Amino acid sequence: MSAPPLPAGLLDRATLAVGPGTGPAVAGELAALTGRPVLAYDTAGRLTGAHGAADAPLVLVGPTLPPALRGDPRVRWFHSVNAGVDALLDGGWPAGVLLTRTVGRMGERIGQYALAWVLADCQGVPGHLARTAARTWRREPSELAAGQTALVYGTGRIGTAVAEALRAAGVRTVGVGRGEHAPGGPFDERVTAEEDGAWLGRARFVVDALPLTEATRDFFADTRLSALGGATFLNVGRGGTVSLPALGRALAAGQVSAAVLDVLADEPPAPGHPVWELPRTTVTSHSAGITADTDITEDFRAGWQALREGRVPELAVRVGRGY
Amino acid sequence: MSAPPLPAGLLDRATLAVGPGTGPAVAGELAALTGRPVLAYDTAGRLTGAHGAADAPLVLVGPTLPPALRGDPRVRWFHSVNAGVDALLDGGWPAGVLLTRTVGRMGERIGQYALAWVLADCQGVPGHLARTAARTWRREPSELAAGQTALVYGTGRIGTAVAEALRAAGVRTVGVGRGEHAPGGPFDERVTAEEDGAWLGRARFVVDALPLTEATRDFFADTRLSALGGATFLNVGRGGTVSLPALGRALAAGQVSAAVLDVLADEPPAPGHPVWELPRTTVTSHSAGITADTDITEDFRAGWQALREGRVPELAVRVGRGY
Repeated sequence: MSAPPLPAGLLDRATLAVGPGTGPAVAGELAALTGRPVLAYDTAGRLTGAHGAADAPLVLVGPTLPPALRGDPRVRWFHSVNAGVDALLDGGWPAGVLLTRTVGRMGERIGQYALAWVLADCQGVPGHLARTAARTWRREPSELAAGQTALVYGTGRIGTAVAEALRAAGVRTVGVGRGEHAPGGPFDERVTAEEDGAWLGRARFVVDALPLTEATRDFFADTRLSALGGATFLNVGRGGTVSLPALGRALAAGQVSAAVLDVLADEPPAPGHPVWELPRTTVTSHSAGITADTDITEDFRAGWQALREGRVPELAVRVGRGY
Repeated sequence: MSAPPLPAGLLDRATLAVGPGTGPAVAGELAALTGRPVLAYDTAGRLTGAHGAADAPLVLVGPTLPPALRGDPRVRWFHSVNAGVDALLDGGWPAGVLLTRTVGRMGERIGQYALAWVLADCQGVPGHLARTAARTWRREPSELAAGQTALVYGTGRIGTAVAEALRAAGVRTVGVGRGEHAPGGPFDERVTAEEDGAWLGRARFVVDALPLTEATRDFFADTRLSALGGATFLNVGRGGTVSLPALGRALAAGQVSAAVLDVLADEPPAPGHPVWELPRTTVTSHSAGITADTDITEDFRAGWQALREGRVPELAVRVGRGY
């Protein structure tokens, strides 16, 4: 489990601060919600703005927790403005600090992203764009996504939202994740990562919505990718879950017919990065689930309310698990 | 109404023939269904293959009805391999000849086409493709299609299928068509063409799924297009329902933000055709609803069964109406 709920009354005394790149609209919303001025902290961990008591507990909202604040015993709750928190957890997380994350409408956004690229593939959107630019008229039959199978790796919020979006367009969805094979939900089938072998050759689409943990690093390597039978591969999870050299081999061999990568292990990639050499691959620059300010403030509000009622926020990160 | 059901027993005596470009798979399926050899006819109207009685009634399945066969009293039923039959009706249709058409999974195909281009627009697919080609990494927020409004012109099979596909992705759908404002179905709202004014400025997407009739020629001209407030315009109906000069003016003025045209009044367009000059416009070469052989044979089978049971086939064309 994550850190337990904060002690009663702690939020009443807490000082709030927003981190680098967090817009004034967020600070304004948080001030209205919590009824106090909201400070700012910078990458050096310096706080600026109207202070409360110097020893007041600190609640921080931002993209990163600077080293200077990692060791600061006043910090009791960090709300990440992003959904992926693996970078925050790198090198360990300070004991006793509650970590929550922003998901917002991110699931819905990533679901529409995944459906957009699945349909773009089936409808030959890139080809139509190229032919229009070349002033060329050529009828090209399309492919129905409906009735085809998508393997969705990761059965949490993002994977579930991806499956919901694909299933609404008639795609058969197989969720690959840990845990019970719960019936219902947006998955037509549920299997564990150890059981996916039977599905790899039948999948028309593979969507990687995995968090990055020690168990998922290079999860998509030669073994899995070479077992695919011409699937289109989408990564909306984390770049580190895919071996790019293995993906390149599977693309060359046709086991992967096309790839759409929203994330890379090293972002941004340099112009000489190997990802640009991959055939039939589109790079979408970590755009799939960009959070809006309203996503951040809505999810902070839900966490704030849960804590005031003595509950663990729904979006609290289980540090040992990594998400 | 279309021609009445054929006289009892007529199908027992009829000779079948498939037209130019209709594949051997179709002929084979029709032979199996009807229990007789299937002939071929060419563009000159000549029949080749194993004849039955020389005066046997003729049932033809193909893309066009050649002039020589238009006046042939043996022709009693023509099944079009396409959904759009306006070209067949040009210059009148021979009295007493039943005309049916192929719709097949065309609705579903066009629905997925429309959804693909709506989502491609919201997700900035063309931009991501261009940046990948240029080896450029740039985060770009996307837009949720969910919650936005689409006006769907034409509330028949195609318009209904488009609305079903869009609505499954959370788009609010307003059907514009003749007839009753029937509740239910895939439309959140139903209005007539005379009542669409209130919606034009609020539509994020406009989908033209109109048949071409005298009433719909140049239906989208300056009046309607200039009332839009930055909508994306898709034409999956008939090219003649849109004035291209007016569309060009609306694109230039920003009233139409982008256009995706599957159909043109004159196909194929020459390299010097004005459509290639339209900004932010993609031409998809009449690919949205390409029928598969199984579509043709399934819809012919349904018509054959209806006629044997003395019913008017569901896909019989009402010649006076034009679809």
